Amino acid sequence: MPSQPSKKLEAFPNPNPERDYTINFECPEFTCLCPRTGQPDFATIRIEYVPDRLYVELKSLKLYLWSYRNEGAFHEAVTNKILDDLVKVTQPRRMKVIGDFFIRGGIHTVVTAEYKK
Amino acid sequence: MPSQPSKKLEAFPNPNPERDYTINFECPEFTCLCPRTGQPDFATIRIEYVPDRLYVELKSLKLYLWSYRNEGAFHEAVTNKILDDLVKVTQPRRMKVIGDFFIRGGIHTVVTAEYKK
Amino acid sequence: MPSQPSKKLEAFPNPNPERDYTINFECPEFTCLCPRTGQPDFATIRIEYVPDRLYVELKSLKLYLWSYRNEGAFHEAVTNKILDDLVKVTQPRRMKVIGDFFIRGGIHTVVTAEYKK
Amino acid sequence: MPSQPSKKLEAFPNPNPERDYTINFECPEFTCLCPRTGQPDFATIRIEYVPDRLYVELKSLKLYLWSYRNEGAFHEAVTNKILDDLVKVTQPRRMKVIGDFFIRGGIHTVVTAEYKK
Amino acid sequence: MPSQPSKKLEAFPNPNPERDYTINFECPEFTCLCPRTGQPDFATIRIEYVPDRLYVELKSLKLYLWSYRNEGAFHEAVTNKILDDLVKVTQPRRMKVIGDFFIRGGIHTVVTAEYKK
Amino acid sequence: MPSQPSKKLEAFPNPNPERDYTINFECPEFTCLCPRTGQPDFATIRIEYVPDRLYVELKSLKLYLWSYRNEGAFHEAVTNKILDDLVKVTQPRRMKVIGDFFIRGGIHTVVTAEYKK
Amino acid sequence: MPSQPSKKLEAFPNPNPERDYTINFECPEFTCLCPRTGQPDFATIRIEYVPDRLYVELKSLKLYLWSYRNEGAFHEAVTNKILDDLVKVTQPRRMKVIGDFFIRGGIHTVVTAEYKK
Amino acid sequence: MPSQPSKKLEAFPNPNPERDYTINFECPEFTCLCPRTGQPDFATIRIEYVPDRLYVELKSLKLYLWSYRNEGAFHEAVTNKILDDLVKVTQPRRMKVIGDFFIRGGIHTVVTAEYKK
Amino acid sequence: MPSQPSKKLEAFPNPNPERDYTINFECPEFTCLCPRTGQPDFATIRIEYVPDRLYVELKSLKLYLWSYRNEGAFHEAVTNKILDDLVKVTQPRRMKVIGDFFIRGGIHTVVTAEYKK
Amino acid sequence: MPSQPSKKLEAFPNPNPERDYTINFECPEFTCLCPRTGQPDFATIRIEYVPDRLYVELKSLKLYLWSYRNEGAFHEAVTNKILDDLVKVTQPRRMKVIGDFFIRGGIHTVVTAEYKK
Repeated sequence: MPSQPSKKLEAFPNPNPERDYTINFECPEFTCLCPRTGQPDFATIRIEYVPDRLYVELKSLKLYLWSYRNEGAFHEAVTNKILDDLVKVTQPRRMKVIGDFFIRGGIHTVVTAEYKK
Repeated sequence: MPSQPSKKLEAFPNPNPERDYTINFECPEFTCLCPRTGQPDFATIRIEYVPDRLYVELKSLKLYLWSYRNEGAFHEAVTNKILDDLVKVTQPRRMKVIGDFFIRGGIHTVVTAEYKK
Repeated sequence: MPSQPSKKLEAFPNPNPERDYTINFECPEFTCLCPRTGQPDFATIRIEYVPDRLYVELKSLKLYLWSYRNEGAFHEAVTNKILDDLVKVTQPRRMKVIGDFFIRGGIHTVVTAEYKK
Repeated sequence: MPSQPSKKLEAFPNPNPERDYTINFECPEFTCLCPRTGQPDFATIRIEYVPDRLYVELKSLKLYLWSYRNEGAFHEAVTNKILDDLVKVTQPRRMKVIGDFFIRGGIHTVVTAEYKK
Repeated sequence: MPSQPSKKLEAFPNPNPERDYTINFECPEFTCLCPRTGQPDFATIRIEYVPDRLYVELKSLKLYLWSYRNEGAFHEAVTNKILDDLVKVTQPRRMKVIGDFFIRGGIHTVVTAEYKK
Repeated sequence: MPSQPSKKLEAFPNPNPERDYTINFECPEFTCLCPRTGQPDFATIRIEYVPDRLYVELKSLKLYLWSYRNEGAFHEAVTNKILDDLVKVTQPRRMKVIGDFFIRGGIHTVVTAEYKK
Repeated sequence: MPSQPSKKLEAFPNPNPERDYTINFECPEFTCLCPRTGQPDFATIRIEYVPDRLYVELKSLKLYLWSYRNEGAFHEAVTNKILDDLVKVTQPRRMKVIGDFFIRGGIHTVVTAEYKK
Repeated sequence: MPSQPSKKLEAFPNPNPERDYTINFECPEFTCLCPRTGQPDFATIRIEYVPDRLYVELKSLKLYLWSYRNEGAFHEAVTNKILDDLVKVTQPRRMKVIGDFFIRGGIHTVVTAEYKK
Repeated sequence: MPSQPSKKLEAFPNPNPERDYTINFECPEFTCLCPRTGQPDFATIRIEYVPDRLYVELKSLKLYLWSYRNEGAFHEAVTNKILDDLVKVTQPRRMKVIGDFFIRGGIHTVVTAEYKK
Repeated sequence: MPSQPSKKLEAFPNPNPERDYTINFECPEFTCLCPRTGQPDFATIRIEYVPDRLYVELKSLKLYLWSYRNEGAFHEAVTNKILDDLVKVTQPRRMKVIGDFFIRGGIHTVVTAEYKK
């Protein structure tokens, strides 16, 4: 049976909580819909964080990002929303989310949001 | 009112039918679903053709590519299908379609199909 | 009816004013006229800012940049002018504007102006 | 007094007509208007030719390309038009014109037209 | 249950046998052992072919390449062997296999083998 | 007789302990197994450190990295483990280990762990 | 009548003296003579400065750089000399000059000199 | 005593006249004067040839290219002139000269001339 | 005991003589002496060949290239000499040797020699 | 008469001792011998320094680097040795030496040593 898009991010216990270390994800397969025109938008989502007690489970992250496929989302809002959702589930020491969107109207937009404990 | 995905490609009269010339499109915003797993696939679609009496209208091409967003499609089949559909509508002198798909299972796949009158 | 170039930048309420986050625009489609020779100049305009209560509406930004098409503008002055206009409308926490101009007389010029609240 | 955009291409006697040789121009500063929306389009124009008795004077080429700044022009038609105009004035042995246009609707378009004596 | 490395390549019916078209795979995750020293070798395997009645099933290709992980294999021999195995299973119209090996003794080696029906 | 994979890192006396200086290794030939699926994972391991009294012997580092070839290892844990092992043997003044893993599920992961005396 | 090389740099009133902003020039067309051998040297000169009351006039900068064409100049001395001359004429808040010279004797030399008010 | 620019190209006996082989030179340090404005022009000169009985002595080539430093020369003419001079001295089986000139008036020009025995 | 530079190239039986296939070597670690000045020269040697009954043993190739370290050798002659030696030992169906030498006197030289049975 | 490799670095009086400025050298033509195997090693040596009263004479630097050609030298030791020798002769305000060595055993090593007055 095929996987399903899912809003449910999962977190696992960090095997090395005694040390600050950094995890980077680059996810070039993000797509959502423009709330104004209904047309598809595409982006690369970059995530960088220092885990505390939990870290993001990779497969649930994939399903989570997939869940935006049929939702309307502004560039600024969706980048902040992904940061909020990831922070809520994993309570990291530090996290940054970058939404790097394809050109619209001849303009290339990148949104960068950061959280610090 | 927002645009809608559409299977209907449109063609316009070629303003310079007396001469063989080439048109290239690079469309990095293509996504469909994997027929086996139901999960999203992503690709860049490249099109190169020599128009005869008609050329592809750019906006209808965008809507056409969009129409695959919720359809299952194998890499090999979808590249040939896009070529068939474009050939049927515009009857070009020559046309090539390249589907350049994102990595799956550690393997990067590119499919290239060509038509000659 | 076609769009029209417009000096009127529009701003929308920032959906996440509680957090400092950064928005980058890269606009490679800027052109104005050289005040001395009347000949066209070309540039890529890069904008980076931290919104406060308002953020720049993307379409009005496109129309605003278009409005320089038939105006004379020195490299240094126009970069500062774009910064001033964007600051006035959006009152950001921080903003930087970079004008990256095409080669003239064998010399490539880049102007970078910054505003901090 | 400033230069003026001009439709008048000028040609000079080829100093080496006894030999087939090739001249390439890359002109990244081309802009015209979209006939449908009235909005600016941008392109890099590339020209490659083998001169016969005449070659294109560089300054008149610059003024000629500038003359499209306020004219409506479709991608396919304008590339063929530039080829036609250059062929008429210089009667080259062979000439190719490439119009490499900025992304519109998520699609990057390149048009290539060629002339042979 | 985890997948297992497998020597068994699988082939599926080509959906477009009426047309010559090309499929490219780039597989940067290949490793085998040096027959002389027993030490690991690494390579990127590139495959390009025109299918006839059958095409290579992607997952079985991944398992097949994996099966070399604990086998001794010279650069020249293994590239030809992969070509032979793929040709036997899919009977393509044309196929090329490239083994692009990591530097050994300060020398970077690439082996290219080709089959034509 | 062939070399053997070995968990035993060796260290040599630092010839210049009076000075802080930095050594970087880039090791693109790392492979281990995914503990969940049993399938091979690939990575480039980057190491940067300031030696104190000892430095890492290059050949033993090669054998040490090789020793993961048939072991299950999560991205986060293995990067921290390599750092721990290298720190234990060489007691450096400062050390950073970066695990740069190949794409899995459309996501590229990089883990960076650092030690300071 | 053709332009003439000139040692006379000109400065214009800064239109935005109320703000610290940065101007970068990249000038890849610099040549002088080696004082020891008399042979030509070539370099790219990069200039970055924050203007105070005056800014460098672009055409006079071009003529100024041209004036070194037939003068002997060591790499280190000429980079510092250009900085001194530009500082004297424009009295900037901060200025950096980089001389990036072509390979001589298998060695590529870059000299960077900086001034702060 | 310093070298002097010299129009005198020298040729040495080809040590392998029994075989067709190719020699490429890339000379990024070419400068001459624009005959119309008197201002410096800059170019990279690329030479590719198959020697017959003689080959170009490298140092005399350097001095020969240097000899254009204070001469007026149009892009098209100077590229053909360099080809003519090199052909006269070395009588090669085949030779190509490419003049790749820096941007003037926003246009980048490349001239390619070829000789065959 | 350390290896020794050696003029003796070794060849092994080609495991796939029934098929034309290509082997490429890139050897960036070549150095010899300039016969005129006695100073070191450096080059990348690229070799491409189709083996017949024999193929070049990799380690003997490394030792062979090393043997030029203290020998005087002109660019043109040494590239042809390497080709001659490799052809004599392996009798290939086709072979090409490229000597890509570091910049001397501001000029970058590449020599390409080819053999066909 | 040809130059000779020489251990004797020479220094000249700094023409601008009143100012801190930086000189960078990139020397891609460095080779020495591995003390363990006797085989050649290759590296690019990068030097960055702020001169005080003296600066390094370029030709003596070339001869100095050449002097390692037939000497055994470990990566870590030789980078520190070059720094020591350069510091002794020129007494700079600050100096950094980077040894960027070619791949050995699948590992790319870079050593960075720094001196501050």
